[in-house]
Amino acid sequence: MKFMEDRILKDGQVRPGHILKVDSFLNHQLDISLLSEVGKAFYDRFKDKGITRILTVEASGIAIACMTAEYFQVPVIFAKKSKSQNLDGDLFTSVVHSYTYGIDNTVTLAKKFLSANDRVLIVDDFLANGKAVNGLIDICGQAGAEVAGIGIAIEKGFQGGGDDLRARGYDLFSLAVVDEMNADSIKFRS
Amino acid sequence: MKFMEDRILKDGQVRPGHILKVDSFLNHQLDISLLSEVGKAFYDRFKDKGITRILTVEASGIAIACMTAEYFQVPVIFAKKSKSQNLDGDLFTSVVHSYTYGIDNTVTLAKKFLSANDRVLIVDDFLANGKAVNGLIDICGQAGAEVAGIGIAIEKGFQGGGDDLRARGYDLFSLAVVDEMNADSIKFRS
Repeated sequence: MKFMEDRILKDGQVRPGHILKVDSFLNHQLDISLLSEVGKAFYDRFKDKGITRILTVEASGIAIACMTAEYFQVPVIFAKKSKSQNLDGDLFTSVVHSYTYGIDNTVTLAKKFLSANDRVLIVDDFLANGKAVNGLIDICGQAGAEVAGIGIAIEKGFQGGGDDLRARGYDLFSLAVVDEMNADSIKFRS
Repeated sequence: MKFMEDRILKDGQVRPGHILKVDSFLNHQLDISLLSEVGKAFYDRFKDKGITRILTVEASGIAIACMTAEYFQVPVIFAKKSKSQNLDGDLFTSVVHSYTYGIDNTVTLAKKFLSANDRVLIVDDFLANGKAVNGLIDICGQAGAEVAGIGIAIEKGFQGGGDDLRARGYDLFSLAVVDEMNADSIKFRS
């Protein structure tokens, strides 16, 4: 959508290693008005899908998940990356490779928060190779919950994760799909 | 405030090691209406303080920070716990001991997002021994920014971090202060 593409062109910075830095508005400093527009866009797209949970992974998906959940008025649940002292009881677990951090994480979600009755909207800030989203899809599968939709702020289309999800039949809505980027230009998929 | 105390009594669970589990509404599954009430309570308390930034630390402070920022209409900035590939350039850093995870973290904030002109509202879900908040205060000090206020959803009063901050003159507003807790009861400071 134009509002996200325009902001990327204005404030996004391309870095080596296929990194698109959007830290001034999306994932280190947060522009709350923009994130609210993101939430509304996801609501407008998925409002007829009977969504019961907004699911993301910590940390940079949480802001988008909250702004989205405000429109849907359903709980947010987020998969956690490290085993804290507080996560007792049964957990869903999946292994996710983080492109940003360059490592594998085990992500966990307490089983009590997701069931076979749930219809889930998965959201995240970035979609690159799709490992994070696929980890969340795996968790939904373990719960028997339906993945009713996937909302992404910025998809790096050239890394293939989005195309793979679409080919597998997921209802993926990315507000901006970057098909090419270098130090001089960023090209969006139309 | 009563709405937070009531929810703790209804859904909070006391665990060994002075842990108060509030995962069903505050920091694993998020009740977005409740978090919006938290944001509004912080806004009502601090709206005349000229706040320019809402500052927290990832991950469980982010949701509260976003809901608070919606009322203030200022950016959220959050300190990050691990060095990602994307954090280039100058960083403020501080060492924070995480009570939840039982380890020391280095937390970082890009310098470009905080300046001596800023008046900061620090927010977080929990305040126990105060290490996380003090790490954020340290970062503000490095930037020359003023800590205009501190908003906490749940303070574990018996762990002393809050009393220490108040004694040092900080304007600390905790929605619930737990002074005693065990498997059978939770007592709030009045």
